Amino acid sequence: MKKIINAPKDVVEEMVAGLVGAYPDYVKQLPDTMVVARSDDYDQVALVSGGGSGHEPAHAGFVGDGMLSAAVCGQVFTSPTPDQIYEAIKATDKGKGTLLIVKNYSGDVMNFDMAKDLAAMDDIEVASVLVDDDIAVEDSTYTQGRRGVAGTVLVHKILGSLAKEGKPLAELAEYGTALVQDIKTVGVALSGATVPEVGKPGFVLAEDEMEYGVGIHGEPGYRREKIKPSKEIAAEIIGKLKAEFNWQKGDTYGLFVNGMGATPLMELFIYFNDAKNILAEEGIELAFTKVGNYMTSLDMAGASITMIKLDDERTRLLQAPVHTIAW
Amino acid sequence: MKKIINAPKDVVEEMVAGLVGAYPDYVKQLPDTMVVARSDDYDQVALVSGGGSGHEPAHAGFVGDGMLSAAVCGQVFTSPTPDQIYEAIKATDKGKGTLLIVKNYSGDVMNFDMAKDLAAMDDIEVASVLVDDDIAVEDSTYTQGRRGVAGTVLVHKILGSLAKEGKPLAELAEYGTALVQDIKTVGVALSGATVPEVGKPGFVLAEDEMEYGVGIHGEPGYRREKIKPSKEIAAEIIGKLKAEFNWQKGDTYGLFVNGMGATPLMELFIYFNDAKNILAEEGIELAFTKVGNYMTSLDMAGASITMIKLDDERTRLLQAPVHTIAW
Repeated sequence: MKKIINAPKDVVEEMVAGLVGAYPDYVKQLPDTMVVARSDDYDQVALVSGGGSGHEPAHAGFVGDGMLSAAVCGQVFTSPTPDQIYEAIKATDKGKGTLLIVKNYSGDVMNFDMAKDLAAMDDIEVASVLVDDDIAVEDSTYTQGRRGVAGTVLVHKILGSLAKEGKPLAELAEYGTALVQDIKTVGVALSGATVPEVGKPGFVLAEDEMEYGVGIHGEPGYRREKIKPSKEIAAEIIGKLKAEFNWQKGDTYGLFVNGMGATPLMELFIYFNDAKNILAEEGIELAFTKVGNYMTSLDMAGASITMIKLDDERTRLLQAPVHTIAW
Repeated sequence: MKKIINAPKDVVEEMVAGLVGAYPDYVKQLPDTMVVARSDDYDQVALVSGGGSGHEPAHAGFVGDGMLSAAVCGQVFTSPTPDQIYEAIKATDKGKGTLLIVKNYSGDVMNFDMAKDLAAMDDIEVASVLVDDDIAVEDSTYTQGRRGVAGTVLVHKILGSLAKEGKPLAELAEYGTALVQDIKTVGVALSGATVPEVGKPGFVLAEDEMEYGVGIHGEPGYRREKIKPSKEIAAEIIGKLKAEFNWQKGDTYGLFVNGMGATPLMELFIYFNDAKNILAEEGIELAFTKVGNYMTSLDMAGASITMIKLDDERTRLLQAPVHTIAW
């Protein structure tokens, strides 16, 4: 393992210190926690997300006006503990309740639920939205059902902008739950990620091999084969998404190409270009497009394609101004 | 070589298509060129930069209101040709002249100079600022003198904000030339970059080895040794910067940690945190901080530390609002 780190056990603590140290105008760390919260004041329903670390800039990079109120940073690829999530809820609640945005992993679901129970004892109103956008496989290493991956970032953005506009908690939860049904993602990996405390990659691919449908913790996908040109990979993934969405010519979508951490922007733009061209042939209108490293998997090479079904309101909310480190 | 690309010869063309296809509200491609220009209108001195591709988001990601008017995208690690630079100058000039921001590589210097001569024949006033912020070595594979690296992004930002405020061409060039003296960078590499048309890494490091002072095209640095903890790497690099700046306790600087492409944000934040702590011990005030992948080297793993001597005006210009894909 070759990484720019100190002791592997300290990576999350030092990463959070670096993040809040670099961007104090955006975020602050809640004392004695691994919670990164907005450093400015606000008066709205609070949005709290988080999960295991190793997916940077998710989620702390999306804390700020128009997105999250706080992000809870667990250990690498490990759900944050209920007490940490509870601290985030307590600190961000402005008397209007808190919406939890949770990626669908068994540990996250359980711990965010327990935190919700703790907050209920303080009479803080809490609701949650579960994100399970990864259509590559049903059930997985750490999941019942489908995994929550890069589409979560779009949920942060849309619900964050809605919350800023003053939407109450119950309506936000309802809106979010419907929204998640219209966001779908499939990833591909060219290499595995190395968790610092493990010291070797979670899986190994041959020098000419790739894997379709890998999760953001290296969970198995649905097929390994020799690497193909970007156009062919994009055609396969868009085909998967089409089968799920069942779209019609003229439908409007957003297209989001996300890097896994070690794949350079050049490749992401090429991959995006191929996906966009295929969608043009399909007669799909794109009202929103985004390319970059947003929901990563440490040093994994690879990329995911997320599509979201759009109407005017969702498009407006995606495009609304925001003040975060990473959106 | 394992990359999400199609034919290696087409990577730049397809990358530019993807970039302008994803962000039409920010940028457009000048017809029949590899020039990415602002898609909105403006009335100020134009700023044109560029260079070889493979450093994304540099430079096209910094095109937009408050930064560059256009970026010229050469082939991978290859200077753009004079005719392409000339097209960028012609298209962006608003009658107030054009400032070229050129990284110090022999090919870039020659080709930007030839483009300047072509523009002079059209009576377009052109001046230039040469960036040579990499203090790791004197002279290098493609350079007389010092290389231009990540500090160039800060030059784009400061001069871009000044140009937007209406500063005339001659003053911008003078301001920029003084500014460059106060920006210094040193990089480290953990792995070499693979140029698509070459198909193998430009250099290879052992599994436990790193190199200090590597350039953004894989040019040799000043020492190879076993990888050390982040704190020790940061101490060495900050020591190099200190020897050049000769700072005094209480001086004000900016600190910019830049990833080379394949190094995840988690490591960049840890490295930043170590650099920041060392500077705190030195009694240096940090008025500006930034962390992320801005001037990359394809899929190289590694990071650079850039420091910039700040006064109130430079700080204000770094913090001024901007409308680009990547700043």
